[in-house]
Formats: sequence, structure tokens, C-alpha cells
Amino acid sequence: MPGEQATLLQLPLTIVPAGTEHEDAIWSALEPVLRAAEVYALPRDWSRAEALAYWSSPGHEVFVALAGGELLGTYYLRANQQGGGAHVANAGYLTAPAASGKGVARAMCAHSLERGRARGFRAMQFNFVVATNEPAVHLWQAMGFSIVGRLPGAFAHPAHGDVDALVMYRAL
Amino acid sequence: MPGEQATLLQLPLTIVPAGTEHEDAIWSALEPVLRAAEVYALPRDWSRAEALAYWSSPGHEVFVALAGGELLGTYYLRANQQGGGAHVANAGYLTAPAASGKGVARAMCAHSLERGRARGFRAMQFNFVVATNEPAVHLWQAMGFSIVGRLPGAFAHPAHGDVDALVMYRAL
Repeated sequence: MPGEQATLLQLPLTIVPAGTEHEDAIWSALEPVLRAAEVYALPRDWSRAEALAYWSSPGHEVFVALAGGELLGTYYLRANQQGGGAHVANAGYLTAPAASGKGVARAMCAHSLERGRARGFRAMQFNFVVATNEPAVHLWQAMGFSIVGRLPGAFAHPAHGDVDALVMYRAL
Repeated sequence: MPGEQATLLQLPLTIVPAGTEHEDAIWSALEPVLRAAEVYALPRDWSRAEALAYWSSPGHEVFVALAGGELLGTYYLRANQQGGGAHVANAGYLTAPAASGKGVARAMCAHSLERGRARGFRAMQFNFVVATNEPAVHLWQAMGFSIVGRLPGAFAHPAHGDVDALVMYRAL
């Protein structure tokens, strides 16, 4: 609804480190995305505890995007590999379904690029962007990522069958 | 040394599930490779316990390649992703330095493809083949893998600086 969108965009979006007080809202955002199983290669039947344990895995630095006290999104930042690969970051973003299409993912991605640079990462890689998730592919391209790999049929989509997943990469 | 190679190739190579009795030999094979830090994106300073915990992580099915009672190699097989990506396998192979160039990795790879099929995987992916590790790249190509992605400068090689890593993939 355009009116709603305009209202939301006028709210200042604040991106801060996640705390335990955000767990309910993170789960509320994550649960429908897990159950739909269309964009993340994660078990669709995960419980709240399993999903939150994953989202806040050791090595994940987790942020939340808030507007007017409401959680609109969350993301984690981590090293994609260890050892000689530890200079490349990885991130996973989740927009609350009610907030989709309002620039939240773009704002979180911009924040993560800055945070990644500040932490000394020299590149960022997305390992598994489901090719049918076109809004995401286009957004990451707009944020400077290139498609550097295509994994044929690597994602079993609940509606479309086996679809490709993309590897996307950019320098920081 | 061709004579030595011929001798070893005449030994029957047996590939069986790893047990705790193989831990010393796995560590002996893994330690020099970790310390050299040229082919795996793993911490080069890992202790024995850290390295063995990684090699036998939950979800890793570990095998050893034995000849005449000696461990010549080891590999793990796992799902590369969860959820909608769980039909794609991943494997990591390690040849004992003294046994390199004798077909051990090839035999382990063939074993893993068969084992992956038996477990119901429909493809296999290598996420991070260091491009300067040309013997490995050529071997995986000979085993039916294609280069489906190239990660620019994703591996900090101790001698060559930042080098590319390759994503390789094949159907099962």
C-alpha cells in the first residue's frame, strides 16, 4: 500500500546490535520465511529455539533494523571461511514479511558493507542466492555484487522444483 | 619415484568408515597440510583436538583409505546445505603427504561419488578449491566436476598472496 510505504520510509530506521530482547520479533520475522522455504536453504520445520540458535550462531554478529520500536529486519555478519579465507565476509538478511519492499534489506546491506569494512573484511560473498528470488538478485546487483557462480538445480523450490542458486561477490 | 608408486598402486586400497583408532594417523596427515596453509581455508594453527573435531564434525561422515595397514588418506562427506539445498553433497579430501600423486585422492573421490549416490544426494559441490592447487582442479575435472564459479582473490595464499578459489559441481 503506497501510503503505508511512504509512512514507513519516513520513520528513521535504526540498525543496532541484537539483544535477547529482540528474540521474539526475530522469530516472528523468521518463522514465516522458514515455513515458506522459498529463499533460504534452511530446514522449514525448525523450532523457535533451533532457528534462533542458528541465527545467533557462534561467529555471527547479529543486527536488528528498528523503526518506531518495531523490528523490520535482522541480519548476521560473519567470516565466510576460516584461515586463508577469513578476509571474506558473509551475511544473511531477513526482512519481516510485513515490511518487505520498503528498502529495509537495502539499508541492512549498506550497513553490513560498512560494518564489514570496519571489521577489516576485504570482500563479501553470498553463497546461495536462490535464482527465483529475483528481487534479492537485483538488489544485491544494485549494491555492487556480481554473480560469480551458478549452482545448477541446487535448490529444491517447493513450487518450482529444482532451481539454480547463485554465488554473488563484491570487494569491500 | 615410479617404482614406489607402482608398489603402492599394487596394494589394495581399502576405504572404510573412520574410527577413533584412526585419529593419530588422520592428525599426522592433516597437520602438515594445515601448517602449510596452501590448499584449505582452515586455521593453520589449529591444535590436534581442534582439527579432529572439525574433520569429524556433526554431519560429517568420515572415511579412511588404508593400504597395508597404513592410512594414505581420509575424506568426509556431508550435505552442503540444509533444507532445500540438502540434496547436494559436499566432501573434503586429504591425502597423507607421503602418499601424494599415487591415485589416493582419485580413489577417495570415486568412493565418495558412489557413497553420495547411495545416500540419495543428487549432486556434489566443492565450495572452495584454491585455484593454484592445479593438481586438484584437474583431478576434479577428470572426475566429472565443472567449474561453476570463481571467487576473485578469496584465498590468502602464504606464498602467492590473494588467489582465486573455484566452486566446482557435478550431478550424481
